[in-house]
Amino acid sequence: MSAANAATPAFVAVDWGTSSFRAWLMAADGTELAESRGGEGMLHCATSGFAPVLRDHLGKLGASADLPVLICGMAGARQGWVEAPYLHTPTRLDALHAGAVSVETDGDVRILPGLAQARSHQPDVMRGEETQLLGVTESDFSGLVCIPGTHSKWIRIDAGAVIDFATYMTGELFAVISQHSILMHAVEPGAAAEDGAPFRAGLASALGAPTALTNALFRLRAAQLLGFSQRADGAAHLSGLLIGSEIADARAQFGDHLPLRLIGAGRLGSLYREALVASGFNLSECDAEQASRRGLFKAARQIWGARF
Amino acid sequence: MSAANAATPAFVAVDWGTSSFRAWLMAADGTELAESRGGEGMLHCATSGFAPVLRDHLGKLGASADLPVLICGMAGARQGWVEAPYLHTPTRLDALHAGAVSVETDGDVRILPGLAQARSHQPDVMRGEETQLLGVTESDFSGLVCIPGTHSKWIRIDAGAVIDFATYMTGELFAVISQHSILMHAVEPGAAAEDGAPFRAGLASALGAPTALTNALFRLRAAQLLGFSQRADGAAHLSGLLIGSEIADARAQFGDHLPLRLIGAGRLGSLYREALVASGFNLSECDAEQASRRGLFKAARQIWGARF
Repeated sequence: MSAANAATPAFVAVDWGTSSFRAWLMAADGTELAESRGGEGMLHCATSGFAPVLRDHLGKLGASADLPVLICGMAGARQGWVEAPYLHTPTRLDALHAGAVSVETDGDVRILPGLAQARSHQPDVMRGEETQLLGVTESDFSGLVCIPGTHSKWIRIDAGAVIDFATYMTGELFAVISQHSILMHAVEPGAAAEDGAPFRAGLASALGAPTALTNALFRLRAAQLLGFSQRADGAAHLSGLLIGSEIADARAQFGDHLPLRLIGAGRLGSLYREALVASGFNLSECDAEQASRRGLFKAARQIWGARF
Repeated sequence: MSAANAATPAFVAVDWGTSSFRAWLMAADGTELAESRGGEGMLHCATSGFAPVLRDHLGKLGASADLPVLICGMAGARQGWVEAPYLHTPTRLDALHAGAVSVETDGDVRILPGLAQARSHQPDVMRGEETQLLGVTESDFSGLVCIPGTHSKWIRIDAGAVIDFATYMTGELFAVISQHSILMHAVEPGAAAEDGAPFRAGLASALGAPTALTNALFRLRAAQLLGFSQRADGAAHLSGLLIGSEIADARAQFGDHLPLRLIGAGRLGSLYREALVASGFNLSECDAEQASRRGLFKAARQIWGARF
């Protein structure tokens, strides 16, 4: 790799989610040269179109027209820009690039596929997280990966291949329960869960009685009515309950003996770190955006190797 | 008891819930002489007042001004008409009448108290169900009672005394998840859960993996994306998952060796009957409205015995 390569743009990496867009101008050595982000996720583009949004961001990045673009995430969903059919588990992560579909637009634009677990009793899907997995694992990695979020993912990987995975509606349940159920009276509007005693109490409750979630939710409200706890602690307690439920079941499904990588960010990453350590996991951490960029870079190098 | 008593109104029984009002003109032998119902629940009356609503319904029932009125339910909540402080568990059901509070209004109007389980690790409350319990149990009853609903209740009773109970947010979670989460795409709008194969599949899933609820919710969506199931089956499957989660945990908390009374009604009662039998419970059934009326009658006889 020459010094010139390190400063020269090699491709554009795009993480195109449901409600967010992030693009990075990348050098041949994986260095990030520029970034452009916005709220034009799949839901936005489904009505206004995908091509103009990409063009705008390429302009902001100062990317030349001949630079290839590699996209991961919901842009490849059926209701996205162009469908990139799921790869089915088990599948090697370094085979992702082979499932990329080309978009009929200006330049060389490709979208990476998601993964599907097409088993009737454990059906599951992901779009975007598979690229993060590629980013944070070596080609012979074996272990578990946890990716917290609206729909948290737990993935079991063996020698670089995704064996199986499970999605938990943790983040989305936090939002709908705190905004639309009777627990709206038990959680401060707009409150974010903080690390601390109420979070740990919710966590301990869920880990100790992992089948009792729908009872524990009502008890959160009853505890406040009876003066055992305060509304100010509601968000953290609810978060502890939901994250604890997720971890208790993931431990039952996948065990806690494998090394675990946590792909987290910010406050949510901190909450999961505390919860996973309290649950007995031995973990290492990776930043979520770095994981996406690194995964797009690895796949891009496989697709356009001659440019790197 | 004379024949005249049987046809003469003795008191008015009122079940005043969060969003519904039901009143019955009752004879001294427990016969229902007339009924009046409406949507003026606690939420409605909190702004428009309780006394005018009661007066209207007493008029519709043709109740004379000197007839006493006994109320159960949310009218006795802190945000209701007059607070009827909770009785604390353990408490005998035939002591409910002693906790009734009188309302300062025209005539003799009293509100029965709810029950509270004031334990810091298992806080819980009920208002209205305690009266149904009184209605369906003999004074020496021992066993479990299940009352399905927005907030389902499981109650353990020993020799006529409520020992402990647990509330599950089953009905409310069905509503908020099917209306406000990604599962809105997996459930037909306004669909009601039907008894059948999808319900039984959800039930079996929850009973077989009782810690996996937040994973199973996402799998419901994934199964449709991958063609394993249809949107038309989503409501029944979701209902099976939530009811199964409730039963699996109640069985863990209370055991399945005690006789169980199910206080149900309509479609929901049928779903619970099927689910409880499939879960190994030995159950008898009572109608929910009859349970309320019968409980109000038993308490009224204790309060105004001279009239009966």
